[in-house]
Amino acid sequence: MTQMPENIRLQLERLMTDYCYAVDGLQDVQPLLDIFTDDVVADFTSIGLPMMDGKGAIKNFFDGVFDEMTHHFHFISNFRPESYDGSIAVMTAYVIGMGHAADGNSVEVQVKYRFECIEQNGRWKCRHYTITPMMPLPASLDEIHGED
Amino acid sequence: MTQMPENIRLQLERLMTDYCYAVDGLQDVQPLLDIFTDDVVADFTSIGLPMMDGKGAIKNFFDGVFDEMTHHFHFISNFRPESYDGSIAVMTAYVIGMGHAADGNSVEVQVKYRFECIEQNGRWKCRHYTITPMMPLPASLDEIHGED
Amino acid sequence: MTQMPENIRLQLERLMTDYCYAVDGLQDVQPLLDIFTDDVVADFTSIGLPMMDGKGAIKNFFDGVFDEMTHHFHFISNFRPESYDGSIAVMTAYVIGMGHAADGNSVEVQVKYRFECIEQNGRWKCRHYTITPMMPLPASLDEIHGED
Repeated sequence: MTQMPENIRLQLERLMTDYCYAVDGLQDVQPLLDIFTDDVVADFTSIGLPMMDGKGAIKNFFDGVFDEMTHHFHFISNFRPESYDGSIAVMTAYVIGMGHAADGNSVEVQVKYRFECIEQNGRWKCRHYTITPMMPLPASLDEIHGED
Repeated sequence: MTQMPENIRLQLERLMTDYCYAVDGLQDVQPLLDIFTDDVVADFTSIGLPMMDGKGAIKNFFDGVFDEMTHHFHFISNFRPESYDGSIAVMTAYVIGMGHAADGNSVEVQVKYRFECIEQNGRWKCRHYTITPMMPLPASLDEIHGED
Repeated sequence: MTQMPENIRLQLERLMTDYCYAVDGLQDVQPLLDIFTDDVVADFTSIGLPMMDGKGAIKNFFDGVFDEMTHHFHFISNFRPESYDGSIAVMTAYVIGMGHAADGNSVEVQVKYRFECIEQNGRWKCRHYTITPMMPLPASLDEIHGED
């Protein structure tokens, strides 16, 4: 396996950090969509949430999330390259994700993100995004994000 | 907007990390004061704490905090440049802040820090520091830091 | 004190991150052992766990931990060089450590790691590892890791 070049590693770390800021903005979904390719697949099934195929599905999901949540906090660290073959770069990171909904429910999860990325027009974008739980999931996760 | 040069970005990340170590030292307030310019303004009002004008006000506040707290833990990540105009560099970061007071109270907050920095004698210092809550604040925050 | 060169700093940050991934893998103890020199000393006494002398002692300890734990999550940040003398490089970092045991117990700690490292065959390894608590320790820590 080729080693991931430092500048690509840095760009992926920043893309994943930008994703957290975008998810936590809770108002405009566009900065969040800009993280992904048009044909992105996002697999949230291992935390009991949907499999999403294409940017439209991601928009629908997060439109719902942004409507119901009043607070979000996605804290990211433990960045680590997983693979790089010259065109596809994969990075993982750990995330503590917290949310508070308008109905008063709160949730906290400890998960791993995996971003499989390619370069488009000089900018790295995620084309496959997976969330994997690292600690047992709270029951409140389904109550909060699972209804829409 | 000019892009923030990598070396300045790195220095701001390290300044904000040094701040966390200084706040968590809980003994000597000097390393904490060294983070700031003499005319620093620190705005903690959005988490129910004081607006502080000048390094003396910061010293007074943290002298009180250091007296009453037995444990501090300020965990920082999600560093992101906000702006850079050639002389003023602004960086934000997320922080999970925890504290335990001598009276037995504990507190945890999830916040965003914003450091507006300038270079003085070859070293970057913060001249405007803002804390913004990202999750609902616990009642215990006011009990712990709000009394002095 | 000599300043720690950037490339060594980066390698130590990545070594400490690799350690977290290795501890959280919970299956193969070998990636975890690869972090350390053969004569490593690991001092966990300040969190009520053993002092370990040599890689064999570390293997024994983590064999037991991996057997009893079903989930691990070690979230690391606040990396900071402590010293560098040209051959020995010391870095500290903050860690939020969580675990869930097969018997249903869960634990969370907020600690500081200190890695004292040397280079062996072109790769940095930890030869002295210390964990220090930053917040009061939960009673469940002893129940979970203290029995073996």
